[in-house]
Amino acid sequence: MAGKVVLHYFNGRGKMESIRWLLTVAKVEFDEVYLTTREQYEKLLSDGDLMFQQVPLVEIDGMKLIQTKAILNYIAEKYDLHGKDLKDRVMVNMYSEGVIDLMEMIMILPFTADKPAQLKTIQSKAKERYLPLFEKALSGPIYLVGGKLSCADVQLFECTLMLEELFAGVLADFSNVKAFQGRMTMIPAIARFLQPGSQRKPQPDEIYAKTVMEVFNFNKPLK
Amino acid sequence: MAGKVVLHYFNGRGKMESIRWLLTVAKVEFDEVYLTTREQYEKLLSDGDLMFQQVPLVEIDGMKLIQTKAILNYIAEKYDLHGKDLKDRVMVNMYSEGVIDLMEMIMILPFTADKPAQLKTIQSKAKERYLPLFEKALSGPIYLVGGKLSCADVQLFECTLMLEELFAGVLADFSNVKAFQGRMTMIPAIARFLQPGSQRKPQPDEIYAKTVMEVFNFNKPLK
Repeated sequence: MAGKVVLHYFNGRGKMESIRWLLTVAKVEFDEVYLTTREQYEKLLSDGDLMFQQVPLVEIDGMKLIQTKAILNYIAEKYDLHGKDLKDRVMVNMYSEGVIDLMEMIMILPFTADKPAQLKTIQSKAKERYLPLFEKALSGPIYLVGGKLSCADVQLFECTLMLEELFAGVLADFSNVKAFQGRMTMIPAIARFLQPGSQRKPQPDEIYAKTVMEVFNFNKPLK
Repeated sequence: MAGKVVLHYFNGRGKMESIRWLLTVAKVEFDEVYLTTREQYEKLLSDGDLMFQQVPLVEIDGMKLIQTKAILNYIAEKYDLHGKDLKDRVMVNMYSEGVIDLMEMIMILPFTADKPAQLKTIQSKAKERYLPLFEKALSGPIYLVGGKLSCADVQLFECTLMLEELFAGVLADFSNVKAFQGRMTMIPAIARFLQPGSQRKPQPDEIYAKTVMEVFNFNKPLK
């Protein structure tokens, strides 16, 4: 029903990038409408499309969905990327929540007053808290949960790429995670998404940060 | 299997209180182990029980679950409080995520440097963003989604009580939300939980804030 999936967000990663990744792995095509002005955002608000006045907004299956995690869960469940049963699903969700916590720390970097301090926090949490955990979880299993690809794998993969962009060689001490990353890269939909010209977004630049600040009327760093 | 549910957390609301509420509505009995010292927390860490070094930790069905939202989703799904199908479930999750965003703003109050400013932000977001939305959603329906009690209702109910504690009369302009709150109060499990002597926790006091700061080695306000 209801035609193609449409994403409403900035022309940048932010909270939408994990949704783009998950749709890609689910082999769902999507169009994008980029939010570039305050007026566009106010139009979405006055149309009543943004339940809590926030983007991402995703048009899918005749619905207008908001709240990143609700959207990710919908896609994961619909496309069989959410664990095979209740017990696997709670493991998938535990890993996902953890990875998303870490990605959110990276996501706010462009809006952080003290970037070097935030980078240091991210690096130490990644190396001391998150990566050791995933290294252990992947010592043997091909995927994080139940021998089956899930949204947690897709998010962990996305997160490892983000970490390597910020800290070259960060995976050197985490060979299972690095091998996992290599395996994920060989999934055809992922391989295509990694090619230039795909809908994957680059690292945030000053234009992205400026647009977000203007659209949301932010006048000081978030953190 | 595996006996009674056991919650590991501070003797206070924090991130665990929504889990206590949901278990209550699901009619699941639970025991609690209160975290009062840094040593207890370090023991949990060294036992490998805290995947991302965070509480809440919930022992249930032979598993040790972490990450609040993963735990809430597990309980909601297991006890039929998560919508009847995929489309209802995404609505439940959208509402839940929104309510939890608002409750998290309240949750960090004891750890906020500028409490009056944070209170002002909470009040204006509640009155301008969240309550109008729920007022509209409840103009007619008994529950938020699909005519059926869900975790989103339980969380909204919990949130309305928190808001009234902070801002007396805040629901005056939101008669549908107030009527919803009244209906929820009449659910027997909820009525019992609201009685003195239940496992419901009071508003955070200085002892709670001090314990959290000590256990987590926080030495300055979080915000």
